Amino acid sequence: MDSRIEKRLGVKELASKIVSAAEAAALIENGTVVGMSGFTRAGDAKVVPEALAERAKNEPLKIDVYTGASLGPEVDNHLATVGAIRKRGPFIADAGIRNLINTGDVTYVDAHLSHNAELVRQGIIGPIKHLIIEAVAITEDGLIVPTNSVGNSPIFAQYAENIIIELNISHPESLIGIHDIYIPGEQGSREPIPMTDVQQRIGEIGIRVPLEKIQAIVISEEPDAPSLIVPADEETQTMANILLDFFRAEIKAGRLTNSLMPLQSGVGSVANAVLEGFTNSEFEDLVVASEVLQDAVFNLIDAGKVKFAAATSITLTEELQKKVYGNLEKYADKIVLRSQEISNHPELIRRLGLISINTALELDIYGNVNSTHVSGTKMMNGIGGSGDFARNARLGIFVTKSYAKGGAVSSIVPMVSHVDHTEHDVDVIVTEQGIADLRGLAPKERAKLIIENCVHPDFKDQIRDYFNRAIEATGGHQTPHILEEALSWHVNLAKNKTMKQEVPAQA
Amino acid sequence: MDSRIEKRLGVKELASKIVSAAEAAALIENGTVVGMSGFTRAGDAKVVPEALAERAKNEPLKIDVYTGASLGPEVDNHLATVGAIRKRGPFIADAGIRNLINTGDVTYVDAHLSHNAELVRQGIIGPIKHLIIEAVAITEDGLIVPTNSVGNSPIFAQYAENIIIELNISHPESLIGIHDIYIPGEQGSREPIPMTDVQQRIGEIGIRVPLEKIQAIVISEEPDAPSLIVPADEETQTMANILLDFFRAEIKAGRLTNSLMPLQSGVGSVANAVLEGFTNSEFEDLVVASEVLQDAVFNLIDAGKVKFAAATSITLTEELQKKVYGNLEKYADKIVLRSQEISNHPELIRRLGLISINTALELDIYGNVNSTHVSGTKMMNGIGGSGDFARNARLGIFVTKSYAKGGAVSSIVPMVSHVDHTEHDVDVIVTEQGIADLRGLAPKERAKLIIENCVHPDFKDQIRDYFNRAIEATGGHQTPHILEEALSWHVNLAKNKTMKQEVPAQA
Repeated sequence: MDSRIEKRLGVKELASKIVSAAEAAALIENGTVVGMSGFTRAGDAKVVPEALAERAKNEPLKIDVYTGASLGPEVDNHLATVGAIRKRGPFIADAGIRNLINTGDVTYVDAHLSHNAELVRQGIIGPIKHLIIEAVAITEDGLIVPTNSVGNSPIFAQYAENIIIELNISHPESLIGIHDIYIPGEQGSREPIPMTDVQQRIGEIGIRVPLEKIQAIVISEEPDAPSLIVPADEETQTMANILLDFFRAEIKAGRLTNSLMPLQSGVGSVANAVLEGFTNSEFEDLVVASEVLQDAVFNLIDAGKVKFAAATSITLTEELQKKVYGNLEKYADKIVLRSQEISNHPELIRRLGLISINTALELDIYGNVNSTHVSGTKMMNGIGGSGDFARNARLGIFVTKSYAKGGAVSSIVPMVSHVDHTEHDVDVIVTEQGIADLRGLAPKERAKLIIENCVHPDFKDQIRDYFNRAIEATGGHQTPHILEEALSWHVNLAKNKTMKQEVPAQA
Repeated sequence: MDSRIEKRLGVKELASKIVSAAEAAALIENGTVVGMSGFTRAGDAKVVPEALAERAKNEPLKIDVYTGASLGPEVDNHLATVGAIRKRGPFIADAGIRNLINTGDVTYVDAHLSHNAELVRQGIIGPIKHLIIEAVAITEDGLIVPTNSVGNSPIFAQYAENIIIELNISHPESLIGIHDIYIPGEQGSREPIPMTDVQQRIGEIGIRVPLEKIQAIVISEEPDAPSLIVPADEETQTMANILLDFFRAEIKAGRLTNSLMPLQSGVGSVANAVLEGFTNSEFEDLVVASEVLQDAVFNLIDAGKVKFAAATSITLTEELQKKVYGNLEKYADKIVLRSQEISNHPELIRRLGLISINTALELDIYGNVNSTHVSGTKMMNGIGGSGDFARNARLGIFVTKSYAKGGAVSSIVPMVSHVDHTEHDVDVIVTEQGIADLRGLAPKERAKLIIENCVHPDFKDQIRDYFNRAIEATGGHQTPHILEEALSWHVNLAKNKTMKQEVPAQA
């Protein structure tokens, strides 16, 4: 046996389970529910799904696929576009599967990322016939050590009938020891999660499974698909600066200290750019408690700004992959990867007092946020963990540029076309125009702030006009709206390719 | 001193603080933030607010009032209608203040009931100048023992500059010992809440405050305004039966046992009637972990069905008040009252695995629920704790009759006019027509179930027609809608007093 494989395979008897990707793919039973490792294109099994996609070209195959979050092209593009996915949850980001979801060819269950584990426990998701999990090693005492994401793999492993391991020897061995796997017991008889500090370790370094469940092991050297985030631009830098000033004001008000509270930052370019904003700031000893560690977090560790970072996945651009995975020892005592049930757990988010920063797709004058549906009907990616965090965080912040589509679309509308975060869960809104601190405010108070501080100048008159007429039309109701017009900006966009409308001159 | 007062006043020096209600009301500073005890018309201070309302008739007075939840007429009607309330949170139910909210005369901040405590800690609500709290006694070691609700009083007491106690000697002394007061520490340095069983006591029997904060004590014998719930009717009984059958199926599926999981049931007649449904059922050893204990819970304790009940308030009809408060000893080891921060805490709701049953005002074909706004603009009562529970519960159930206004209104519409609970947080819907179990389903799957099982026959063709045309119009998007029409049922209601519309015959 290849020595590189030998040292990753702590339980020697398992060598007999090594098969090719095609042989492993042949074990997947048609019509079953399959759990897969992987979270935002990190730590996903790759060669077995690719072989499965090949198999599906030649025989009827339809499976339900549940993962941590979005996967790379092998599943969310290749397997999906050959028509082998019936149902998919809980998050996607690939255009391949997105299109199939919006033609009704794939049934997509968009869910809070922390909720899946309980649904698996209750058998609502399941029975899980197979788990395909990427691992960096199997330890001598039989722990499966995931690669650069944990996701839902621990709960899938607990409930799956069969486990197929994709042992990826291209991942550095130094990943071993970075994970902290803790699985809560049954509801009603479980203990408090024994964590009072993000840096605390509460579990094991891998996933413990009965070895007889391991059906096959496939050796892989396939690298992760790299993160596709783009660098900060002037507007995201402005948003970062606005946010830093807000934190400074919070410190002055005695609500935060110079090391803030544990920071959660959503996935994507905007959230990454906002986090980058801390690099040259005066903030220190920052702690990150997030879903995904993107480029910014490692740059902030290097800059001495972030002292510890926990998440369920590491998703990096090609450049950062080289830097981080080539020097993982350097970061080993500063990062930890946990299951998404723990990273996104309401108990911990509330106890630790997280500051949560997520991206809005659109929001309305009263502070409702749409994170998922373009014009209310078309799925973009999914809610992800934004709801887990925003609902229970100490501070729920949403960021978005005030406009989209070159200025034809206002990100702030009279009424969002889909609600993922209600007015009750949105504390602060930041656009490149400014900030609206909504805490403790009633709807009409919020509307004034959002309109005056956050809306793009091109849409300000139009949205003010709507708000004023809505107050008049309702006689001052709690949440003034003109229902005939509330969604007219979206209708106008579909008809005229722009949300812009003439505002009649006031008498 | 009256011997009835003497035995309630454990700290004898406090006798010097006894003043009249008018004298206490005179201490309230104009323009300040005032915390008050009280939760769903239970345990609210009464004589001091009444005196305050009198004072406001003769001099300018405007205060911000934060409470546990809705109060009786002294505050939410008398004090409000004399114009003395500027801002109000987090829940109301009286028509007096409701009208003022919907004319813009009172600014109302509708919030999750578990969230206030954190906002007080952060100073977003505050500075709290006064707390007016109804108490049944002050113990010898200086604990303020609340009456039949706890609400936000512990956190208000911790942060208020001055405390005015309304010592209500009409409440039975046997209330002493029923409370369990536990106040979490600061976020980031707090411990796990040490509760793994609803029956466990984790705190003290009263609220500990520095005695020098006690500014005045007013003696009262004023009873609570009774609960206004109405008895079950045929349709609520049908809903209860549907729900019991659902639980039976869950037991069969191995997901629940015969004692279910701790039950939370919302405030109001429908939720009470649904809970009454357990009386002649086979379920046993039930535990209630709710916000409010209404009549049904005590009837179920009497019937030997409920073995323990925890909440933050006891709100009873006049008949039940006599029965329960006359025999409180009988219930003393079976009930506990906690702060709303604890009764509604995400950490405990998730850990204990609550089954949450709340009333929807309207809901839509995709499972979004409106709990607060009539036709999207007019505040009804507020979200209360429904969001605290539904989001983190093991099972989030919403109940509503399928129609309202004598059949002119369908409770199920194409798109709700306001979202309080998103599609991600609603597990099961029950109307008198049937049940829709939405767990693990995608939007279009949910729509079919909701339409076929829950919609009133008078609206079925109309809503099917909308759904089918929406699928066609979008080409099968994740969440089909026709935005021009999505809110047309509400528009039609405003114009024609009915949501009913002709459905064109299908070709």
